[in-house]
Amino acid sequence: MQNIKGARSSFRSINTYANRGMTLEADLEASNTFYLVNDIAIVHKKPTPITISKVDYPSRVQAVIKEGYFRTPSTTDYNGVYKGKYIDFDAKETKSKTSFPLENIHPHQIKHLENIARHGGIGFLIVRFTLLNKTFFLSIEKLSEFMNNNKRKSIPLDYFEKEGHIINDKYNPRVDYIEVINNLYFGGRK
Amino acid sequence: MQNIKGARSSFRSINTYANRGMTLEADLEASNTFYLVNDIAIVHKKPTPITISKVDYPSRVQAVIKEGYFRTPSTTDYNGVYKGKYIDFDAKETKSKTSFPLENIHPHQIKHLENIARHGGIGFLIVRFTLLNKTFFLSIEKLSEFMNNNKRKSIPLDYFEKEGHIINDKYNPRVDYIEVINNLYFGGRK
Repeated sequence: MQNIKGARSSFRSINTYANRGMTLEADLEASNTFYLVNDIAIVHKKPTPITISKVDYPSRVQAVIKEGYFRTPSTTDYNGVYKGKYIDFDAKETKSKTSFPLENIHPHQIKHLENIARHGGIGFLIVRFTLLNKTFFLSIEKLSEFMNNNKRKSIPLDYFEKEGHIINDKYNPRVDYIEVINNLYFGGRK
Repeated sequence: MQNIKGARSSFRSINTYANRGMTLEADLEASNTFYLVNDIAIVHKKPTPITISKVDYPSRVQAVIKEGYFRTPSTTDYNGVYKGKYIDFDAKETKSKTSFPLENIHPHQIKHLENIARHGGIGFLIVRFTLLNKTFFLSIEKLSEFMNNNKRKSIPLDYFEKEGHIINDKYNPRVDYIEVINNLYFGGRK
């Protein structure tokens, strides 16, 4: 049995540390806090879905989960609002220097993002090539376009360079994806 | 120790059964599925946030949570997109026949909904008076207005009748809150 007391964020993050100060997940949490505090956008990460099978009640006020299992999420990890628009995305890291393996995304997550776009929301992926220290915004439209026209099981880096948008590293917010959205969907208006 | 094998929905629902066939949560899940399948709106309930403190790995593929605790959610339970707009709400039941006790809502949830509205999203509560079998839509604007002008710790039923909007019981979707949103914010357009 492994103790992970104090681990507050999603369990999945434990497996995704790269050779970099911060994970993409931690960078996004800091960025979302920056957006919230500065009243720019409201975006939250959804809790990890868990099926609970046993609960103990050592006292009247506290319930303790004694058995539970991780479920596969049916949607993406992040959603929220920017200038009234619904935004929805997932964030992925890869250690590859040349391409992003599509096995990192569940088919139902892609379908979910396509649904979002059809309903007028802004759906996208944030993909970080950790060893290159490059982070990209890729719209669901461009992701679907790639998958419809290719049998490849990974998206090459140069597709991100051409069809995606680089998200520059900043001090604060660390991953300024709202800047990209503002340029793409709101004509760069403040 | 209590066994709740097979319980798939939020743990909180267990405490909120009313003398009615279905809980509001179950009705909303069915309604959201109806909206999704019929391509009307995409709304999901967020998973219950849990802090995990011990995990066991009986096999390479399956992790079992051996100790965890329920966290207070920092936002509301439901969000999604309708006609490009961000929508965000919480759903509450009361057994009172005369008023809705405000202790049912956390102050940070109210602040969250006020933030959503300020950013152009549609924020609201769905409140069911289970013994009256009446379900209301109450916008965050009307909720804030009540709280700013009253020292009462509960919202009387007649405030819902006057300032809220009744959500009619239907066969499918059971709780058609999108119809109310469409009338209020989209001029009833199909």
